[in-house]
Amino acid sequence: MSDYTFNKKVVLDVSRVRAFEKELYMAEGLSEEDAQIVADHLVEADERGVYSHGIQRNNIYTKRLELGGTMPRGVPRIIRSFGATAVVDGDQAMGMVGGVFAMNEAIRLARIYGTSTVSVTNSNHFGTCAYYVQKAADAGMIGFMWTINCGNIMAPWGGVERQLGNNPFGIAIPCKTRPTVVLDMATSVVARGKIVMAMKTHSPVPESWAFDVDGNPTSDATKAYWGTVQPFGGYKGYGMTVINAMLGAVLNNSAFGETIVDFYEEPDKVQNNGFLLQCIDINAIDNLDDFLLRMDAAVDYLKGGKKAEGVDEIYLPGEIEYISQQKALKEGIVYPIEIIEESQCIADGLGVKARLID
Amino acid sequence: MSDYTFNKKVVLDVSRVRAFEKELYMAEGLSEEDAQIVADHLVEADERGVYSHGIQRNNIYTKRLELGGTMPRGVPRIIRSFGATAVVDGDQAMGMVGGVFAMNEAIRLARIYGTSTVSVTNSNHFGTCAYYVQKAADAGMIGFMWTINCGNIMAPWGGVERQLGNNPFGIAIPCKTRPTVVLDMATSVVARGKIVMAMKTHSPVPESWAFDVDGNPTSDATKAYWGTVQPFGGYKGYGMTVINAMLGAVLNNSAFGETIVDFYEEPDKVQNNGFLLQCIDINAIDNLDDFLLRMDAAVDYLKGGKKAEGVDEIYLPGEIEYISQQKALKEGIVYPIEIIEESQCIADGLGVKARLID
Repeated sequence: MSDYTFNKKVVLDVSRVRAFEKELYMAEGLSEEDAQIVADHLVEADERGVYSHGIQRNNIYTKRLELGGTMPRGVPRIIRSFGATAVVDGDQAMGMVGGVFAMNEAIRLARIYGTSTVSVTNSNHFGTCAYYVQKAADAGMIGFMWTINCGNIMAPWGGVERQLGNNPFGIAIPCKTRPTVVLDMATSVVARGKIVMAMKTHSPVPESWAFDVDGNPTSDATKAYWGTVQPFGGYKGYGMTVINAMLGAVLNNSAFGETIVDFYEEPDKVQNNGFLLQCIDINAIDNLDDFLLRMDAAVDYLKGGKKAEGVDEIYLPGEIEYISQQKALKEGIVYPIEIIEESQCIADGLGVKARLID
Repeated sequence: MSDYTFNKKVVLDVSRVRAFEKELYMAEGLSEEDAQIVADHLVEADERGVYSHGIQRNNIYTKRLELGGTMPRGVPRIIRSFGATAVVDGDQAMGMVGGVFAMNEAIRLARIYGTSTVSVTNSNHFGTCAYYVQKAADAGMIGFMWTINCGNIMAPWGGVERQLGNNPFGIAIPCKTRPTVVLDMATSVVARGKIVMAMKTHSPVPESWAFDVDGNPTSDATKAYWGTVQPFGGYKGYGMTVINAMLGAVLNNSAFGETIVDFYEEPDKVQNNGFLLQCIDINAIDNLDDFLLRMDAAVDYLKGGKKAEGVDEIYLPGEIEYISQQKALKEGIVYPIEIIEESQCIADGLGVKARLID
């Protein structure tokens, strides 16, 4: 189901990877509870086939924890509170720690007021949006997440300079028996990693992926690498990119534009990453169970439509990831050996006893 | 600034068009207050160069009012209320009447609770999203609007049947001196009207605009007409389309899928159109004035980036429409004579005394 093909594979039980990850992040100084959150987040991404946001990030996350860009014992706290809103200072803890803290508060507020908005500042790279908005869906709510990326790679429409991230956003809506509908997307046509991969393998890229330094579409991966990623859907995706940055970062004075700290290139610097969470408690609008049944019917209706030739299945947002997760929970996660060896090496260096492979 | 070129033009003062429109809708049975709202909405769309949503809709709107699809004296009301949320029954009044009523309630609730969510059902075609979300921005808030379209023209990704609208959404964020940043977009690459126009003029269409009935991209405007519009950004735009429908319609049991009533083809049938509004009172998150200054700085930063060759200006979402509006307020709105004659003819038939042209 995933984009990835691995030369040498290893299949690992999810509980084993979770236990390993927890120990790894405890060895980096996180509390047991916080290490559990990070472990859960990363392993869930891998279960869902979103390897880009899974344990392959151990390398950069641990580097940042060691070099001071991320605070292992940061404690997120509410610094402003009004009605159904809150502002959370992430205290430069791991982004997952701040994200879970903030989403828990958003869910608590929405239970009281029917809806809520929680703005997070002074945080860090938080992984996937799907993880947080699904927590809202699991609580019988609709969850929204608006974010700014930790690195500028996109030009404003008509521009040529890297002034914007491919700022992701996520929205989750629960169903009765169908998987939660989860939209989680960045605003570029493809991840920049795909352009890097093409350059390394001397392959051309589709002209829709990137602009060169002069703002022209290019199929040359090297020119694409030095240029800017294209927003999905042209100026419409650019519009979404700008809005996500304003909701996630400008709203609460987090890093934007020239104050963005590059997640990879500046591991010793705190990021001041911002994001915005919103919840709607479905029970405030209608009987939850009636709604969940309507969602099942809506999903059935879309999936039941006539398919184009060669198409086996019509999928809802997040459904492919759900299927991947169900398979991983039963059969284990398929990993490329390189990722496992890299993580094991980091853990060995820290004296972690848990092992990914024997 | 606009896409449109008119053969025979007439320039009308905005106050004259507003007065005419108000009388026209009062002649259709609307109260003075409601007629004023409809007039204001339609003329603002024309001012902003969004002619597709301006007074050229008089034809279908008046037809629906006369044939029973829309209730001239419908009175929107709150039918459910919980904390910072409300559900509004639009009573099949003009969508603008329900939309303004609901946005006023959303703003009122957000002033009390810092944020709000208002779900609207049993409403009608409401025009542009920009109109409503800008009201939130004018109140020092961030406004969101999620909607479902009044007609199925898009297939789910991988499908070939018309099961979805090109469901628009809107988000507005205010600035201090810069124009409000207003995103208002449908989820198709282009409006279906452009495909209709190409078919009528025997012109080809870009392959990115539509699929034929078998789900293949086509440059044949007739095949495109009988097929489905393409979502912007491929599967990503499809994802947004689905989410918008679920937020706007499935949430409150409004028309979705097979229960959609076509706005144009079924003018005698009530639509049961649904949409969702959200507000965030910026003062709940940060000092409003500090935020507005940050927004100005963010806009300046993006507009100040190096431009691609041939690009005169980097625009923010909604900026082109703002410039068009400022020009229209000073110099009048440029209309094609056909639209003016059509509207005048409708008004004459109703014995309306106000005239668009002497």
